[in-house]
Amino acid sequence: VTRRVTVKELGEFELIARIERWARSAFPARHRHVALGIGDDAAVLRPPGGHDLVVTTDAAVEGVHFRFDHESAATAGRRAMVANLSDLAAMGARPLAFTLALTLPAETPVERVRGLVRGVLREAAAAGCPLVGGNVARGGEISMSITAHGSVPRGSALRRSAGRARDHLMVTGALGRSALERYRGRVRSVPVPRLAAGQALARMSGAQACIDLSDGLVADAGHLARASGVRAVIDVARVPRPRGFERACRAAGASAEDLLLGGGEDFELLFSVRPGAGGAAALSRRLGVEVTEIGWLEPGAGVGVLGASQNRDVEAGWRHF
Amino acid sequence: VTRRVTVKELGEFELIARIERWARSAFPARHRHVALGIGDDAAVLRPPGGHDLVVTTDAAVEGVHFRFDHESAATAGRRAMVANLSDLAAMGARPLAFTLALTLPAETPVERVRGLVRGVLREAAAAGCPLVGGNVARGGEISMSITAHGSVPRGSALRRSAGRARDHLMVTGALGRSALERYRGRVRSVPVPRLAAGQALARMSGAQACIDLSDGLVADAGHLARASGVRAVIDVARVPRPRGFERACRAAGASAEDLLLGGGEDFELLFSVRPGAGGAAALSRRLGVEVTEIGWLEPGAGVGVLGASQNRDVEAGWRHF
Repeated sequence: VTRRVTVKELGEFELIARIERWARSAFPARHRHVALGIGDDAAVLRPPGGHDLVVTTDAAVEGVHFRFDHESAATAGRRAMVANLSDLAAMGARPLAFTLALTLPAETPVERVRGLVRGVLREAAAAGCPLVGGNVARGGEISMSITAHGSVPRGSALRRSAGRARDHLMVTGALGRSALERYRGRVRSVPVPRLAAGQALARMSGAQACIDLSDGLVADAGHLARASGVRAVIDVARVPRPRGFERACRAAGASAEDLLLGGGEDFELLFSVRPGAGGAAALSRRLGVEVTEIGWLEPGAGVGVLGASQNRDVEAGWRHF
Repeated sequence: VTRRVTVKELGEFELIARIERWARSAFPARHRHVALGIGDDAAVLRPPGGHDLVVTTDAAVEGVHFRFDHESAATAGRRAMVANLSDLAAMGARPLAFTLALTLPAETPVERVRGLVRGVLREAAAAGCPLVGGNVARGGEISMSITAHGSVPRGSALRRSAGRARDHLMVTGALGRSALERYRGRVRSVPVPRLAAGQALARMSGAQACIDLSDGLVADAGHLARASGVRAVIDVARVPRPRGFERACRAAGASAEDLLLGGGEDFELLFSVRPGAGGAAALSRRLGVEVTEIGWLEPGAGVGVLGASQNRDVEAGWRHF
């Protein structure tokens, strides 16, 4: 029984051996793009010929990105992996492999590490993205730094900067669920990284700028607008939300509008398409996920929000802090 | 004057903007293997055609891997980057690009972050390995997780597992300096990652297993031996050391033998060559760095140490903790 064993009692090398074992059970088969996995000075990947390599790093820190009184270790691990996979999705990339750098206080129960790592591995396995290496270090708090690798056909990565005035602004799925759960202090759902949709977008000729919604709709629209040198306009009424969302927000005492526009970690894709590229229905079929048109790009800077109960426009010079 | 400004006062986005600026001054030119650098959801790399991708992750945590009362922020940053570059060297890889995930307490002075990041960038620039992305998160302590990417001609990565009985065991440079500095509590030197030597080794036909010395000579010889399914034998008298090392150790009250065999972070390469592959002098010329023969591989398991003042043999089942 390992329930109360701490990582200090287990020791670094045995902990690494266990993580390897968990990874082997999550990825029983050899992966054709991994020439050498865990256990050497570095991993060796063999991306498909003619592809560019896409690389993203994201960290999740206890008390900042996740709290064990709000969510299980497995959910925290799953969400950390999804954040990285979502960045690959937003580039139109197919996942290849990832590395994991853990810092752990010496007293961390091994069972908790197991929950976190198995959560990470569960989402990685669903995406076909094996663990190929990493690092375990002692630290004052639990943190997970994930670096995910993917590939796209050469030159076809979806950039934030490709938006143009008159493009339609589209979003996948529905927003607000993660923010409402955080507001309530009970995080249970794990967003789906839109990998297939991102890859389909990267193959489309009319698709333009793309970003995943991690900071919140208005904030991320601002990133896209700034990178593209345009202004984004969003119509609140059109922003897709889960069924019964307003009622659930009222019950929780939260503002649905705040959560839809400002809540982060939906991990849906926000993207722009040229005027003739097809409407939401055609895009939904093409991307295999519900797509909603929520606004447009126009000359200017910043983000304009239509139909909000208060002014939520964001000017060009705006910053989070 | 930014001397006393904290990262909280500066704000996340302005901190990221500064890191981008520091990176641009460290890497003024566009890098031909970087299609898209900092600023999107992910970076896009374009490794040379016909090459495998080599990936390594390493973390450096304040109080565990570095201490500001022992070394400057710049030295801590340089050493963190060297640890990663050294892993690429040990695979025979040429550096491509890296990502950096920082966690910082809110009260961290920006000047300290600047020292760390510029230290990281200085070593990265020397290796031609640009910063292409990363993450900044609030945390209870300073930590840097670096993921370094390199490439090797397809199939030619140097693996730990390629050693065979009768191979000669060789080491680059001299050992013990980092351990002595840590012992004295004044860390000033920054090891040189043996990138050119590793790449030259990967091109040599008689070169076999390779590992970089991060944990210490006996520990790392043990990793190599275990991966190769052989026993490593090391002759203490042959282990290369800096000029005046014994005297400096005596003056500090340290055991030279302890530091040579057990001290880590020398970041020299330990590798094996087939019996006919040439002696140390020929290898020194070929690798462009002093090479010393320190022992051999033989059938069996574990590590045997000849000529030590006490038994330092390590048996097959041995672990660090």
